[in-house]
Amino acid sequence: MIVVMKSDCKQAEIAEVVKRISKLGLREHISQGAEHTVIGVLGQVSPELQDMLELLPGVEQVFPVSKPYKLSSREFHPLNTIIKVGENTIGSNEVVVIAGPCAVETEEQLMSTAQAVKAAGATILRGGAFKPSTSPYHFRGLGEPGLKLLARARQETGLSIITEVMTPQDVQLVAGYADILQIGARNMQNFSLLDEVGKTKRPVMLKRGLSATIQEWLLAAEYILAQGNDQLMLCERGIRTFETYTRNTMDISAIPVIKRLSHLPIIADPSHATGKWHLVAPVALAAIAAGADGLMIEVHPTPDSALKDGAQSLNFEHFQQLMSQLMPVITAVGRKLATSPLKAKPQPG
Amino acid sequence: MIVVMKSDCKQAEIAEVVKRISKLGLREHISQGAEHTVIGVLGQVSPELQDMLELLPGVEQVFPVSKPYKLSSREFHPLNTIIKVGENTIGSNEVVVIAGPCAVETEEQLMSTAQAVKAAGATILRGGAFKPSTSPYHFRGLGEPGLKLLARARQETGLSIITEVMTPQDVQLVAGYADILQIGARNMQNFSLLDEVGKTKRPVMLKRGLSATIQEWLLAAEYILAQGNDQLMLCERGIRTFETYTRNTMDISAIPVIKRLSHLPIIADPSHATGKWHLVAPVALAAIAAGADGLMIEVHPTPDSALKDGAQSLNFEHFQQLMSQLMPVITAVGRKLATSPLKAKPQPG
Amino acid sequence: MIVVMKSDCKQAEIAEVVKRISKLGLREHISQGAEHTVIGVLGQVSPELQDMLELLPGVEQVFPVSKPYKLSSREFHPLNTIIKVGENTIGSNEVVVIAGPCAVETEEQLMSTAQAVKAAGATILRGGAFKPSTSPYHFRGLGEPGLKLLARARQETGLSIITEVMTPQDVQLVAGYADILQIGARNMQNFSLLDEVGKTKRPVMLKRGLSATIQEWLLAAEYILAQGNDQLMLCERGIRTFETYTRNTMDISAIPVIKRLSHLPIIADPSHATGKWHLVAPVALAAIAAGADGLMIEVHPTPDSALKDGAQSLNFEHFQQLMSQLMPVITAVGRKLATSPLKAKPQPG
Amino acid sequence: MIVVMKSDCKQAEIAEVVKRISKLGLREHISQGAEHTVIGVLGQVSPELQDMLELLPGVEQVFPVSKPYKLSSREFHPLNTIIKVGENTIGSNEVVVIAGPCAVETEEQLMSTAQAVKAAGATILRGGAFKPSTSPYHFRGLGEPGLKLLARARQETGLSIITEVMTPQDVQLVAGYADILQIGARNMQNFSLLDEVGKTKRPVMLKRGLSATIQEWLLAAEYILAQGNDQLMLCERGIRTFETYTRNTMDISAIPVIKRLSHLPIIADPSHATGKWHLVAPVALAAIAAGADGLMIEVHPTPDSALKDGAQSLNFEHFQQLMSQLMPVITAVGRKLATSPLKAKPQPG
Repeated sequence: MIVVMKSDCKQAEIAEVVKRISKLGLREHISQGAEHTVIGVLGQVSPELQDMLELLPGVEQVFPVSKPYKLSSREFHPLNTIIKVGENTIGSNEVVVIAGPCAVETEEQLMSTAQAVKAAGATILRGGAFKPSTSPYHFRGLGEPGLKLLARARQETGLSIITEVMTPQDVQLVAGYADILQIGARNMQNFSLLDEVGKTKRPVMLKRGLSATIQEWLLAAEYILAQGNDQLMLCERGIRTFETYTRNTMDISAIPVIKRLSHLPIIADPSHATGKWHLVAPVALAAIAAGADGLMIEVHPTPDSALKDGAQSLNFEHFQQLMSQLMPVITAVGRKLATSPLKAKPQPG
Repeated sequence: MIVVMKSDCKQAEIAEVVKRISKLGLREHISQGAEHTVIGVLGQVSPELQDMLELLPGVEQVFPVSKPYKLSSREFHPLNTIIKVGENTIGSNEVVVIAGPCAVETEEQLMSTAQAVKAAGATILRGGAFKPSTSPYHFRGLGEPGLKLLARARQETGLSIITEVMTPQDVQLVAGYADILQIGARNMQNFSLLDEVGKTKRPVMLKRGLSATIQEWLLAAEYILAQGNDQLMLCERGIRTFETYTRNTMDISAIPVIKRLSHLPIIADPSHATGKWHLVAPVALAAIAAGADGLMIEVHPTPDSALKDGAQSLNFEHFQQLMSQLMPVITAVGRKLATSPLKAKPQPG
Repeated sequence: MIVVMKSDCKQAEIAEVVKRISKLGLREHISQGAEHTVIGVLGQVSPELQDMLELLPGVEQVFPVSKPYKLSSREFHPLNTIIKVGENTIGSNEVVVIAGPCAVETEEQLMSTAQAVKAAGATILRGGAFKPSTSPYHFRGLGEPGLKLLARARQETGLSIITEVMTPQDVQLVAGYADILQIGARNMQNFSLLDEVGKTKRPVMLKRGLSATIQEWLLAAEYILAQGNDQLMLCERGIRTFETYTRNTMDISAIPVIKRLSHLPIIADPSHATGKWHLVAPVALAAIAAGADGLMIEVHPTPDSALKDGAQSLNFEHFQQLMSQLMPVITAVGRKLATSPLKAKPQPG
Repeated sequence: MIVVMKSDCKQAEIAEVVKRISKLGLREHISQGAEHTVIGVLGQVSPELQDMLELLPGVEQVFPVSKPYKLSSREFHPLNTIIKVGENTIGSNEVVVIAGPCAVETEEQLMSTAQAVKAAGATILRGGAFKPSTSPYHFRGLGEPGLKLLARARQETGLSIITEVMTPQDVQLVAGYADILQIGARNMQNFSLLDEVGKTKRPVMLKRGLSATIQEWLLAAEYILAQGNDQLMLCERGIRTFETYTRNTMDISAIPVIKRLSHLPIIADPSHATGKWHLVAPVALAAIAAGADGLMIEVHPTPDSALKDGAQSLNFEHFQQLMSQLMPVITAVGRKLATSPLKAKPQPG
């Protein structure tokens, strides 16, 4: 941590900073610049120290030097985290495609979608049973019956299942059905929920908050890792900006940034990022070209009668077209599509 | 709801839109413009209808006409909501001042602050027992022992108590101690939590999310109101923008906007909005001039040794100066300071 | 300037940084932290040095220590700049009110507005003769005939005149008519234009760009000051954010921030900040409470037939009401309204 | 245009709206909804009408139906605009690569860069002779001597030349040297400059403003097209958001959005979008995958001694690596690299 003193600061003010530093068992290093005295703080500084020092008279600015996240940092964990889900891996050279409806609506809707996305090359099925909704008057999901339908879809197709959990009480319930627990954007800083999924052994996908900086996102990841769950992947799903033509703004640079700063896999969600089905394919290709480890795509049998997010859902034909366009791009960046879903288990009876 | 067709749409596409509308028991009204055919949808439209119609071929744009929030709208509830807290009212002609430390740290810290803010004119004491923290390695609050200290401070000073609740499981616990339940900015769309505080009879303060539009904020309010709790106030605490000199950007216009769109009281939090103690007073005065029903101010005996948010906390002297500056501004806008805290109850025994 | 080396940097990399610093005639100061080596750069560093050093191998981050603006900084010019316009001063204890139509449309429109705003207490008349317009098909102003009308309004009412100049070629022309040259938000970084108004002796008002940080704004001010024109005031007119209910988001904190960082006067423009006439009064009061040196308000005889920005213009009655509400707030913050427009000069002949 | 009346509006208010519409020679179409009366305005509406109508009593909201831009709209010009530059085309199936230093510094720097980028596969050379600079104390370009160096580089290498013009007075000068005139992000709404380049016959590249919506960008394009210059391409270079790790946020979705809304070619500038050289390659690949017609890349012989934007410049080796990575992605999306620079013309004498 580095403390820059004001150009007109007094000796006593410098002495007070030094005293504070010493009291915490840290050492200081003073250098006298042309305009400013600068004091380096040596040792393990606590995060509150910056706030404290900035308040002392004579202090102009305090800069942190070390990154505030550790477990999610590539600096302390140089090799990629690779997560095993079903027979696929996430974070390896394979590109994984997750697809399915925004919300689980009916057995017919889910099963037909599961079969269609499997046929087109997806290996993980998405579908919300508990849905966050901006308005209390919108559809909020089927709840546990939705989870049961997801489990049946897995049984029939061999696809792995990802679904959202919205509140700490539901973590055990959802973990009983899902292969991957999804934390939605609005819950990225729901710290009780992060603690709770951190205590499970299930893989977790942590979506970026609508207005979360990359550093805040990695700190949210740190909550889960700190509880002992290292099966964690991130998902860029667009951030909120002034532009209104798209629902959000896909931060495409976040993909190589996460790859540089962290060892965690990064998935892209072009459906939420754009909010318009006709933008999903170009942005999906872009995400893979930028280095994403996978895609999460909303697919619905009849988007124009979907209960949620129809405008951003692909129908089966458009999803198949996307998969065709995707293949040469995956090859172009030297990767391959994850293609080995578990065999469907024979139905009992 | 209004459907604008593409300039080159076909008659069959118009017919399909009309068919969809009829199927839902709604009526349509077609007008032929110079470039576009426009179809008005008459009747109670469901919120998903916009998504569906936008996907139909030949449709260019769909505009909602009615506001999506009802219970929080002034249109359906013209008179101000007035909330009784202790002997004060919030949302009336009185301006209420809420003050106290970011986090409850020690008995000494809390009691001295309670006495100081009461002496300076505050009538409600703030203080976090459960604290959201960007990093898992920062201070996260004392938990229930913090709530007990708050209760003791109320007993000694007669100040009412506001404190944050972060997760649905804790709502009953916190409601057992607090006069007002605070929902923090990061939890504005924690819908399970909104449902839960909506089921209590305690007054609730709903802070605006970091990147929530005013409409989303009123929809979050709708969750609480829809559960039957109408003792609800809002709190503007700054939004996230590109400017980094301040911690957030106080959206001062949101104060008169809320007054126009809603009947709910609106409080301003200049401490979080600015993140710098020396900006708190001017922004607090501005909020009152703009029509806020109250202020929430962070005060700490020794901000430079606070465990959390010291940089934005006023010390006792600065808080007293703020109150002096505030009085003439409150008078200038034709209001008066809420000044009648309950007498301190005699300590048992 | 402070250079933080990577935790695993090599000695040769440190040596290279030191070599670069020495080559520029600067001195270095090395401190060895727990995780990072930190190198302080002593002496007058050029602004490009940061970019260069950040590219060297082994370097993690480079922090500037000195502020990049000098002439606009309060550090180097502790006393407020006070600008004389007509018989009033801007930046003193007086609060100045600038009012008038967005665009000069007709003699009748301008004269009636000038008389009305003077009667209500304004001392400076605004009105655009050259208008920036998002679309080429919108009204772009009357040009020089508009300037002549402004001059006539000054002659008849004694009000001073402020009007926008949009391109370097027009600076001499506009300076021949206006008492204050206005640089609009879209031109805040039109550097050729800044240079040109910097070469005149006319007072200049520099509006903040839609997405300019406070530091960029002060650097734009630096362009004008560096050319020798120190009659400069700033104008906060709202920044662009995700919120769409208002046209822009008034950054109310920018007012005390500018007062702290700079000696330049700061005016607030609630008309552009909000884009809605019914929000102008509360935000205007807020700006004065926050410490603004003046207001710029759009007023039109019949806003519903204005050629530009009618939605944010006050009519005469609403402007008069605003002035009545304003007076007690000005008093409450210990200031007074600038009230002495020059006597109208007798018309020649 | 569609006028939504308030739920409690009076008949006289509806009549007034209708009267206004009729007075302008337009027709109206009234429909009575469950809660709101809606009035459609038929005929060619002027852009100011929305403002006017929104101010009338009883009016709740006014929606425009037609897009405000015409010449840049694909609706009115379905086929792609294809621009011929040297022997290449922009906007066709070819992907064009523009590369070179941020600023022209010396003959040696420019010539070596021109040779290197040509060898690696670029066909257009970029280089600023007039440079916008946030601070007046930074390097602002060589001016006309820089233009002469660019002309010499074209003569020696056969590369076409693109360079920025910052002010209307310089348009003729710069057009005398450049093959493409560049309008920088800060000047996207410098309307005098747009008018002036619109009057030339030179191809123009219009960069998106830091906080410009896509609609504002297309309206700025409209200025140039309306003056008769249809040799226009757009350039997405990142927008300003709250994220600070990158210099700007590349709005990758803007690429397919522009392709859908407009017939104009779209180039991507990953150097300015990211501000960090190590992010340039992944974001460049993403832009091509998303459908961009070309790339603009900053290349410098020794980025760590560049006078401007060194941190985001590739050195020769990194640029060559980028070109190698790019080739398979261009193929994957079914396009080919523009590869035929003009032969270098023999030097006179």
